[in-house]
Amino acid sequence: MEDNLSVVLHAQGDLRLEERPIPEPGPNDVLLQMHSVGICGSDVHYWQHGRIGDFVVRRPMVLGHEAAGRVVRVGSEVQHLKACCVSPCLSSPGDRVAVEPGVPREMDEFFKGGRYNLSPTIFFCATPPDDGNLCRYYKHSANFCYKLPDNVTFEEGALIEPLSVGIYACRRAGVTLGTTVLVCGSGPIGLVCLLVAKAMGASQVAVTDLSSERLKMAKQLGADFPLVVSREDSAQEVAQRVEGMMGNQPHVTIECTGAESSMQTAIYATRSGGVVVLVGLGAEMASVPLLNAAVREVDIRGVFRYCNTWPMAIAMLASGKVNVKPLVTHRFPLEEAAQAFETTRKGEGVKVMLKCDKNDQEP
Amino acid sequence: MEDNLSVVLHAQGDLRLEERPIPEPGPNDVLLQMHSVGICGSDVHYWQHGRIGDFVVRRPMVLGHEAAGRVVRVGSEVQHLKACCVSPCLSSPGDRVAVEPGVPREMDEFFKGGRYNLSPTIFFCATPPDDGNLCRYYKHSANFCYKLPDNVTFEEGALIEPLSVGIYACRRAGVTLGTTVLVCGSGPIGLVCLLVAKAMGASQVAVTDLSSERLKMAKQLGADFPLVVSREDSAQEVAQRVEGMMGNQPHVTIECTGAESSMQTAIYATRSGGVVVLVGLGAEMASVPLLNAAVREVDIRGVFRYCNTWPMAIAMLASGKVNVKPLVTHRFPLEEAAQAFETTRKGEGVKVMLKCDKNDQEP
Amino acid sequence: MEDNLSVVLHAQGDLRLEERPIPEPGPNDVLLQMHSVGICGSDVHYWQHGRIGDFVVRRPMVLGHEAAGRVVRVGSEVQHLKACCVSPCLSSPGDRVAVEPGVPREMDEFFKGGRYNLSPTIFFCATPPDDGNLCRYYKHSANFCYKLPDNVTFEEGALIEPLSVGIYACRRAGVTLGTTVLVCGSGPIGLVCLLVAKAMGASQVAVTDLSSERLKMAKQLGADFPLVVSREDSAQEVAQRVEGMMGNQPHVTIECTGAESSMQTAIYATRSGGVVVLVGLGAEMASVPLLNAAVREVDIRGVFRYCNTWPMAIAMLASGKVNVKPLVTHRFPLEEAAQAFETTRKGEGVKVMLKCDKNDQEP
Amino acid sequence: MEDNLSVVLHAQGDLRLEERPIPEPGPNDVLLQMHSVGICGSDVHYWQHGRIGDFVVRRPMVLGHEAAGRVVRVGSEVQHLKACCVSPCLSSPGDRVAVEPGVPREMDEFFKGGRYNLSPTIFFCATPPDDGNLCRYYKHSANFCYKLPDNVTFEEGALIEPLSVGIYACRRAGVTLGTTVLVCGSGPIGLVCLLVAKAMGASQVAVTDLSSERLKMAKQLGADFPLVVSREDSAQEVAQRVEGMMGNQPHVTIECTGAESSMQTAIYATRSGGVVVLVGLGAEMASVPLLNAAVREVDIRGVFRYCNTWPMAIAMLASGKVNVKPLVTHRFPLEEAAQAFETTRKGEGVKVMLKCDKNDQEP
Ligand SMILES: NC(=O)c1ccc[n+]([C@@H]2O[C@H](COP(=O)([O-])OP(=O)(O)OC[C@H]3O[C@@H](n4cnc5c(N)ncnc54)[C@H](O)[C@@H]3O)[C@@H](O)[C@H]2O)c1
Ligand SMILES: NC(=O)c1ccc[n+]([C@@H]2O[C@H](COP(=O)([O-])OP(=O)(O)OC[C@H]3O[C@@H](n4cnc5c(N)ncnc54)[C@H](O)[C@@H]3O)[C@@H](O)[C@H]2O)c1
Ligand SMILES: NC(=O)c1ccc[n+]([C@@H]2O[C@H](COP(=O)([O-])OP(=O)(O)OC[C@H]3O[C@@H](n4cnc5c(N)ncnc54)[C@H](O)[C@@H]3O)[C@@H](O)[C@H]2O)c1
Ligand SMILES: NC(=O)c1ccc[n+]([C@@H]2O[C@H](COP(=O)([O-])OP(=O)(O)OC[C@H]3O[C@@H](n4cnc5c(N)ncnc54)[C@H](O)[C@@H]3O)[C@@H](O)[C@H]2O)c1
Ligand SMILES: [Zn+2]
Ligand SMILES: [Zn+2]
Ligand SMILES: [Zn+2]
Ligand SMILES: [Zn+2]
Repeated sequence: MEDNLSVVLHAQGDLRLEERPIPEPGPNDVLLQMHSVGICGSDVHYWQHGRIGDFVVRRPMVLGHEAAGRVVRVGSEVQHLKACCVSPCLSSPGDRVAVEPGVPREMDEFFKGGRYNLSPTIFFCATPPDDGNLCRYYKHSANFCYKLPDNVTFEEGALIEPLSVGIYACRRAGVTLGTTVLVCGSGPIGLVCLLVAKAMGASQVAVTDLSSERLKMAKQLGADFPLVVSREDSAQEVAQRVEGMMGNQPHVTIECTGAESSMQTAIYATRSGGVVVLVGLGAEMASVPLLNAAVREVDIRGVFRYCNTWPMAIAMLASGKVNVKPLVTHRFPLEEAAQAFETTRKGEGVKVMLKCDKNDQEP
Repeated sequence: MEDNLSVVLHAQGDLRLEERPIPEPGPNDVLLQMHSVGICGSDVHYWQHGRIGDFVVRRPMVLGHEAAGRVVRVGSEVQHLKACCVSPCLSSPGDRVAVEPGVPREMDEFFKGGRYNLSPTIFFCATPPDDGNLCRYYKHSANFCYKLPDNVTFEEGALIEPLSVGIYACRRAGVTLGTTVLVCGSGPIGLVCLLVAKAMGASQVAVTDLSSERLKMAKQLGADFPLVVSREDSAQEVAQRVEGMMGNQPHVTIECTGAESSMQTAIYATRSGGVVVLVGLGAEMASVPLLNAAVREVDIRGVFRYCNTWPMAIAMLASGKVNVKPLVTHRFPLEEAAQAFETTRKGEGVKVMLKCDKNDQEP
Repeated sequence: MEDNLSVVLHAQGDLRLEERPIPEPGPNDVLLQMHSVGICGSDVHYWQHGRIGDFVVRRPMVLGHEAAGRVVRVGSEVQHLKACCVSPCLSSPGDRVAVEPGVPREMDEFFKGGRYNLSPTIFFCATPPDDGNLCRYYKHSANFCYKLPDNVTFEEGALIEPLSVGIYACRRAGVTLGTTVLVCGSGPIGLVCLLVAKAMGASQVAVTDLSSERLKMAKQLGADFPLVVSREDSAQEVAQRVEGMMGNQPHVTIECTGAESSMQTAIYATRSGGVVVLVGLGAEMASVPLLNAAVREVDIRGVFRYCNTWPMAIAMLASGKVNVKPLVTHRFPLEEAAQAFETTRKGEGVKVMLKCDKNDQEP
Repeated sequence: MEDNLSVVLHAQGDLRLEERPIPEPGPNDVLLQMHSVGICGSDVHYWQHGRIGDFVVRRPMVLGHEAAGRVVRVGSEVQHLKACCVSPCLSSPGDRVAVEPGVPREMDEFFKGGRYNLSPTIFFCATPPDDGNLCRYYKHSANFCYKLPDNVTFEEGALIEPLSVGIYACRRAGVTLGTTVLVCGSGPIGLVCLLVAKAMGASQVAVTDLSSERLKMAKQLGADFPLVVSREDSAQEVAQRVEGMMGNQPHVTIECTGAESSMQTAIYATRSGGVVVLVGLGAEMASVPLLNAAVREVDIRGVFRYCNTWPMAIAMLASGKVNVKPLVTHRFPLEEAAQAFETTRKGEGVKVMLKCDKNDQEP
């Protein structure tokens, strides 16, 4: 436990690999030896632009929030997780856990009401000013670390983070047996929505994207109707094509691009009485056919990350209900973070994993 | 039962009072002698513009859909309503009923699922091409006529129609004990939303309007915070003023103007995790801060008329929980329909009632 | 279309195969040539006891309500279904349909509210005094006949009826991704609940039965934890065994036996804040640990048949999400109805199908 | 701040007034000077029986959990509440607060999911072994102390605790505008359910009790139909009488007696598709018509205390929507706790308040 190599963003465009001190866990924390951490579009966005909306990188911040690792020390109050025999130690194994990156700081109305993701003061890994976990050693609230069963790999554990967006989106949409679903966008987030919709019993899922390349993975993961769209298509045309393919308008549309035209498509395409879930994050203002949504009672529901998804996700992975393994298309050791970020930036593959444990680079 | 004077719209701007034949009720219908029929903004809109969105007046259409009357004949299959002793007859009284103007024509998925207002083939009074009930005698599906208790007047019965918009909007919003509510717009629809929100237990209701005149009635009906806004105010400013007045952002906003700026206000003003209900109908496209709504999980839900509200509304009126009587500010006999429409067009008062029964012009 | 051989129950124990007139469809009806009709436990129960609760067989009644057939004539108002070219005719094919046996007779509050199964005056096949469809020709409300896609067999169509009980039970239970479920009873109804729970994303399903024989099919259909129980086991013991097997209490229990001890188990076994769904129908009074349910907020929800399930079920069968084919263990031509009923009575196999079309006895 | 006189239960029947040390608030706590504390049926039950179910008084425990007081010291981390200028101090006023007696100890699935009342390790005032607040000085988690507006008295603040049971019960029942409600039992809990149901828009509320004396207060608080029942009445008879009085079966029944016969009545009386909420706590096993509930889909939902009710309750009291003041029928200074308990034990009056502040015995 000597070094704590970390991927630190100093400012827009200034990404560095540097040593950081190993943190000291508080009474309710655990210290984790990180194993696998995925790179998210938002990590790349902070690197490229130094900000997302109102969140601005003002001082050096460790990136990374899709993570799994092993418990190496536990705080004095922690009961449900165990580290290894002697502490500090690396020889005997502590619990393997997946990390939920959002930890509410206050017991406010949102937390008490079961929607802690909406708590305005929440801690969130790699959202300024909070550090992420793309490093060797990271401390986290023990209550937001979830033990992985033996048959769930670290990488699956790390993928619970994006998967949670899909679970939460489908939950907010009310996807269930026989629901027909349109997913707009076939990036990593669109793909997890597809996977989850299928696992919840959706009978048909259509997926759109501008790139036919991107739709290949959707098809491979079970999309019934992959649909290449172009920027020239009008939203109503795309909506009609979707209805034509599916035989009826979908009950639910999950928008995962953030593009204004795709939000318009989402509204026009959805069946009366259905739901549009907005996952994709676009410009502050969007011009959309709200009248059409209103008179057909197509509800529009946003998604801000997720809450209460980890236990469910672990159950799904352990039982084999959802297979997220094909999402990982690239792996790099932590030392090669620069190439890993470059790969994600270029939109190659789907999910790039950084392997943080020098002695174990297995999935 | 000789004449059937009716208010017929022949084309944009061409409103006529004319005799029509008295209709013959089918086996599941009742024939009603109309008593009180309110004028709605949409009646005036058809008169002034000849259309609302895709609904175009192509052939003469009787106006009116806020109605109550007395059963004078019943179809052969009708069980739950009774006409008078001999039929046709006017001397002995049949049941007094309120008319739900929307009657689904098909047993489609929407009707079977309890959301018959969304059925695309629904009959609706005074929506082209379906005739309304601003006349002396009108036949309607008996299943959509609801008996009025003795302590509920005909005018209250007619007001159940706009009241239903308020009930349905508040129901979709999930208003309950302790909910704080912002109502945008203090027209008749905003006012019924105010009344219903209060009756459902809302602890604070703020109401906005451009006109301080219009807000007087809101204040009289119990608005806690009437707020005059101007077209120059930015949506975020108004939202902040609302938060300032109420001490916190409202849980729910019910938009009853259809104005784009007011929809923007609705989103910015609503608390994270809350609900914006769109009642007001505006332009096809609206530019709104969807990103703000999405990341704060402010759900946006439309309202298309209502369903399953009449029994509840009658219960409320009978028990005195809601008092709609102050909404009626003008009354005209049917023969003076022209003046009545002119009064509504000029935005004078709140609700104008046409009295269709020559022998009984009481409320 | 000469004969209309029908399975008629005249009184307790008096089951006859007899000719009946071919019915005349009304304007909103279709005449069906029946193809496959499953035998339900209730059919056998009427035969053996002449009654179920307050429903008493007072005059001869055709049995059968799990049915699929082909449209041979359509009423004058029917739009969405077609019969063959000439009518009556058997040579050219009409639409293949699954029959929803419950048809509301009145547009009452239950129907308008989307819960038509609760309408007290509902028509229901083979519930006295309403005739069922175990016959050659049967007329039914066209609105409650659902067209089968080509890749769904008649037998699958007939099985939508019991499947609907499972769909509705799981829907009332709120089963979704990652839900853990206990199903009590491994009869046909327990098995469809198992199938549906899995298709909705349940991560673990345990199934109990008194008979290990019965649990074999459960295991084959995907039960994670089959559990043989005995009448001597206390409810709390069984509950503990379930928790032990599953690693935690199940979120949801679906009771499909009607046995008092099993209802007790259902309550004790379910996690706090979870749901017990009562599908099994037992004695009027049951002695159960309501206090335990109340203080742990284990909600108890009944199931009376189903509503709004056929379209969803067809979507599931067409997309291959649910495989009900293994449920059919026996087939008999209509002429051998006596043996078919005897087979069901003895509890052999799972589902017995009667083949009503002389010229097509395929699945 | 010299003495801390406290009402301590040492064992069954052994209630003592004694001095206790003034507790030291932890970093997230506040120290309260208690002002008004109501006596609950459970306080009397512990005194009389030494236990409630599995909760047994094994060592001396301070009673009381319906409480309001003033903040006199705040822990180092507390932000939203303030004590007086110098600390300790009694001269200058700290915040006036109502105390939510249940404080979850663990961030388990129940707490994260917004149902912290179900957390098995929750701290709860005056439930063994946790001390209550019938004393002069009491420390509590600051997150579960809610600031009272100036126009809400301490006694109203204390009454939020029983009121919360009513709010939570009505919320679980889904009471809203036009709901018809049967409340079984006219003790303090039945009365708060009545008050809340009315405030949520219930159009009719019937209330039963064995004692016509008890029903007087119900009538005074707005019950539409007070109904004296006797132990000899069969449950079905009472159910029929309720239907007769109300003109239809109630949508919702809230059972507040714990008596088996009343639970039976609750099921029989409730409309198909409605809800029975079990608030009353009776014997472990109850014999009830579950079959009737199941086939009419009358859902049965328990209530374990409440969660997320204080802010809503304060909003209601501040806005005057609910008036709980008439519930207080007796007041005693803390020194006379013995008489106060005796008064409650004898069932005299409704709510007995103990006044804990020597210098301020106002409401
Ligand atoms: N709400 C949340 O909590 C949350 C969480 C994670 C990600 N997100 C957002 O979800 C979105 C998707 O994330 P991702 O990582 O998959 O991004 P991504 O950029 O990898 O994928 C987006 C995909 O959408 C496609 N696309 C763009 N415009 C389109 C259009 N008009 N029609 C169809 N397809 C179009 C792109 O070709 C691309 O394949 C992003 O906007 C991201 O910010 C939101
Ligand atoms: N969704 C439905 O089923 C349904 C049913 C009935 C009415 N409506 C719609 O509801 C809306 C209201 O109906 P109404 O009859 O009360 O109309 P109205 O025109 O009488 O009232 C609208 C009020 O909004 C005010 N207003 C306009 N712009 C505003 C702004 N920017 N901020 C604040 N206030 C503003 C106006 O001054 C006016 O008082 C209309 O758009 C109508 O079409 C919808
Ligand atoms: N609510 C509804 O709408 C509805 C619809 C259809 C069937 N049902 C009811 O569902 C129940 C199941 O129907 P089915 O056709 O599967 O019946 P079935 O008799 O074939 O199956 C019941 C199974 O339960 C088992 N069982 C009996 N006691 C048990 C116990 N204590 N613990 C565990 N298992 C036990 C039996 O061995 C049997 O295998 C019946 O009560 C039926 O009346 C209800
Ligand atoms: N679930 C919870 O979280 C919770 C919280 C507080 C209280 N409770 C329970 O609620 C119940 C009511 O509390 P309370 O303080 O009002 O008690 P209480 O004893 O003061 O009132 C109960 C009333 O019910 C009446 N009653 C008894 N049997 C009856 C019957 N068969 N029919 C009609 N009325 C009958 C009694 O005459 C009495 O007036 C108690 O069982 C209590 O334990 C539960
Ligand atoms: Zn991410
Ligand atoms: Zn109108
Ligand atoms: Zn059956
Ligand atoms: Zn209490």
